[in-house]
Amino acid sequence: MKILITNDDGVYAPGLSALVRALSELGDVLVVAPDRNRSAASNSLTLDRPLEIFQHENGFYSINGTPTDCVHIGGSGVLGMEPDIVVSGINAGPNLGDDVIYSGTVAAAMEGRHFRYPAIAISSGSFHPNSYEGAAQVARDIVANIQQLNVAPRTILNVNVPDCLVEEFSGIHVTRLGHRLCADKPIATHDPRGKVRYWVAGAGLAADREPGTDFYALDERCVSITPLHVDMTEYAGMDNVGDWLERSF
Amino acid sequence: MKILITNDDGVYAPGLSALVRALSELGDVLVVAPDRNRSAASNSLTLDRPLEIFQHENGFYSINGTPTDCVHIGGSGVLGMEPDIVVSGINAGPNLGDDVIYSGTVAAAMEGRHFRYPAIAISSGSFHPNSYEGAAQVARDIVANIQQLNVAPRTILNVNVPDCLVEEFSGIHVTRLGHRLCADKPIATHDPRGKVRYWVAGAGLAADREPGTDFYALDERCVSITPLHVDMTEYAGMDNVGDWLERSF
Amino acid sequence: MKILITNDDGVYAPGLSALVRALSELGDVLVVAPDRNRSAASNSLTLDRPLEIFQHENGFYSINGTPTDCVHIGGSGVLGMEPDIVVSGINAGPNLGDDVIYSGTVAAAMEGRHFRYPAIAISSGSFHPNSYEGAAQVARDIVANIQQLNVAPRTILNVNVPDCLVEEFSGIHVTRLGHRLCADKPIATHDPRGKVRYWVAGAGLAADREPGTDFYALDERCVSITPLHVDMTEYAGMDNVGDWLERSF
Amino acid sequence: MKILITNDDGVYAPGLSALVRALSELGDVLVVAPDRNRSAASNSLTLDRPLEIFQHENGFYSINGTPTDCVHIGGSGVLGMEPDIVVSGINAGPNLGDDVIYSGTVAAAMEGRHFRYPAIAISSGSFHPNSYEGAAQVARDIVANIQQLNVAPRTILNVNVPDCLVEEFSGIHVTRLGHRLCADKPIATHDPRGKVRYWVAGAGLAADREPGTDFYALDERCVSITPLHVDMTEYAGMDNVGDWLERSF
Repeated sequence: MKILITNDDGVYAPGLSALVRALSELGDVLVVAPDRNRSAASNSLTLDRPLEIFQHENGFYSINGTPTDCVHIGGSGVLGMEPDIVVSGINAGPNLGDDVIYSGTVAAAMEGRHFRYPAIAISSGSFHPNSYEGAAQVARDIVANIQQLNVAPRTILNVNVPDCLVEEFSGIHVTRLGHRLCADKPIATHDPRGKVRYWVAGAGLAADREPGTDFYALDERCVSITPLHVDMTEYAGMDNVGDWLERSF
Repeated sequence: MKILITNDDGVYAPGLSALVRALSELGDVLVVAPDRNRSAASNSLTLDRPLEIFQHENGFYSINGTPTDCVHIGGSGVLGMEPDIVVSGINAGPNLGDDVIYSGTVAAAMEGRHFRYPAIAISSGSFHPNSYEGAAQVARDIVANIQQLNVAPRTILNVNVPDCLVEEFSGIHVTRLGHRLCADKPIATHDPRGKVRYWVAGAGLAADREPGTDFYALDERCVSITPLHVDMTEYAGMDNVGDWLERSF
Repeated sequence: MKILITNDDGVYAPGLSALVRALSELGDVLVVAPDRNRSAASNSLTLDRPLEIFQHENGFYSINGTPTDCVHIGGSGVLGMEPDIVVSGINAGPNLGDDVIYSGTVAAAMEGRHFRYPAIAISSGSFHPNSYEGAAQVARDIVANIQQLNVAPRTILNVNVPDCLVEEFSGIHVTRLGHRLCADKPIATHDPRGKVRYWVAGAGLAADREPGTDFYALDERCVSITPLHVDMTEYAGMDNVGDWLERSF
Repeated sequence: MKILITNDDGVYAPGLSALVRALSELGDVLVVAPDRNRSAASNSLTLDRPLEIFQHENGFYSINGTPTDCVHIGGSGVLGMEPDIVVSGINAGPNLGDDVIYSGTVAAAMEGRHFRYPAIAISSGSFHPNSYEGAAQVARDIVANIQQLNVAPRTILNVNVPDCLVEEFSGIHVTRLGHRLCADKPIATHDPRGKVRYWVAGAGLAADREPGTDFYALDERCVSITPLHVDMTEYAGMDNVGDWLERSF
């Protein structure tokens, strides 16, 4: 199997190295990651400049772009591999509910939705993980068994793993996305020259963390696997909008 | 009605001005847009620096951040308005099918999913529109009638408008997202110092442009309205993954 | 006379508009400025991406690059003018002593050192000027008389103007650069996610503000004109280093 | 001796590692470099965001900023050292004549002008050096003897070293800066979406490469050492400007 590995925490991140170690035994590995932390890059693409590729001493490639750029380049064959699958992570911090629309980790997996096997985004439940080994083992188990997985084309598996020993996991759950409240208010700060500037605030609290959600699973110290697709059509809303159109126009 | 207007083409873009003119008669308007073109910014957030707000002579605010940042700031009340709705556009170029996961225009609308009324992203079918007036009129009609619209909370309306006179529209269709083939290969170029760099290539061709899709509607010179949500869970895939988990672990 | 005008405060800055108004009566004017505030850009050049040129409704061009990039592009003829002179400003805030090595305003003037007439950088003595009119009038007077000025090729005039009415100026002095103490310590701050980050601190206080310096002139409410060159060779130090070389090698 | 080492080619650059190896035997070393290539950053400072410091596995720190930022932070004591000297390099490519006003390598040295010993910028004569060992040895020899050097405060030594074995050097010359012709014209290119963009062109050819200049020394396969200062006052031009002022105002 030919495996493209990337992340959004950047080419230096320890979670990337842990993932590379875990997957190297399963096939050929190509590592292409952003040259720096690009958390919250979502599916953004760099269109205003051509990207630079740099190969590091450990063989990893970095790109001065986004996670999605990395998969665009790494998946294209220009670096000598036509990948069968992309695995993105291990992110320092969970990607749950609404997070998936902001996450560069998940976006990188989405960008590999046209590859042969389902793309995988894998995140640690902790922003400062004690260890990436549990998540690395989960990633390895999923990839090793991916051919048995019978999901629709273009499906992405969003995996969140508790930051504990594998023996301490309470289980593995297939989940739906929960969702969050509105984010907090931006936070005002002054720069040293007296100008007011605003930090983007943290994500909102979970509004839907019911059993069955990814939030719930992780809270219960379970691995959460959520299958995602990229068709955001709200099918249930089509009729209402259609009715309104008929009345209004 | 209190209307937050933004875009991803940047504060200078003529499509923004056209939208502001169209909506100003419907309520109070607050314009907060990126300080430059941020096309393909997706839902990216700026987390590595606090944002700067600048008010232009025409009253528009710009932010040195992404479209999503603009709604985060503009929707928070720090600029003196608590908006009821966000309208994003008018984008120079359509946002169809897979485009919606990359689009800053659509992302800005998504970021307003917690506001009172459904968020609206509006795009011209042409990358170099002859006129924004048709799209502006569609935007005004939708916003004027938004209270009659009976859709689920957190729904976004993704609107694509043919670049022609309103009288030339063939109709208005409620559509589902089509989807695209994999993007083209990145395009190698050399900088003047001899280094190879790669441009991100154009979007893939439409793979699903059947009747009922947004692609089809626009091709038929119809306005396309696609209701979107942000729950990307692939519910249909949950059982398969669950079966596999049972077999594998 | 063909005049290229730029700045480092960005294409929106009121000091740029004031300068354009003042110089438009003296010849053909081409305005090419950074698309955003690039204060402290120094002589930096953008080498990792090709630059984009955008023409605004008022005819000004902006570039997504540095002040030096603007003069590189604007002075090259690609925008239809081969300038005789570059004038940079009016900066919001003085550029005195060591400031000139950090200033984008001064750098932009330096980049025009190969043009026919001496390049001019012009700054207001205040970071929040009450008016740019005094500085604008000084700029116009210097440019109008520039052909009488008998200075060496590649000379730049660094002009600092008190923020007051022209009638209130105490005089016009030709000055040397003073110099500053070491900058303050960087200032620690925490982002909302708990990470420590450091702001670059303010410039150091003036260490040499003796009569004859630019600092002194401005303090006395005089216009300060300092001729600059770009040959940073420390001629006085060449012998000492030579002696040491003879002893050491 | 407490030595701060930085560069403008970024924390990954092999020239940085070579310099660190060469200087580690002479004292305590603190390495603080830009997180990516910042060639041509000049003396630019990052004022629009607070900087992030990251420590790599090899102990080097990187900063998401410019070379000057790195010395501002690294020289301030916040990383546990109050340096006696800054050494910047080894740059891949020479910094000769007018290059010094654009160079991030030289700028980083300038930023250490307030430290105890003269700051040093060191560059290889080749953009693709066969080896950094010759330059590393020159750097070590200069630093080891720096206390014997008797130059004015705030002097910077700009050192360019031929890319050959030390035994092949023809000598070591104390030089003045030569200077270059105007840079080439910017180079038009089209992005994949059809937009014209312009690359900043290469540096101009040497206009003054006479004996005594840095250009000449390097051409002769000599090490070139040019003492620099930051006082750019054109003293010779002060009288002329003064005469003109008297006549004009």
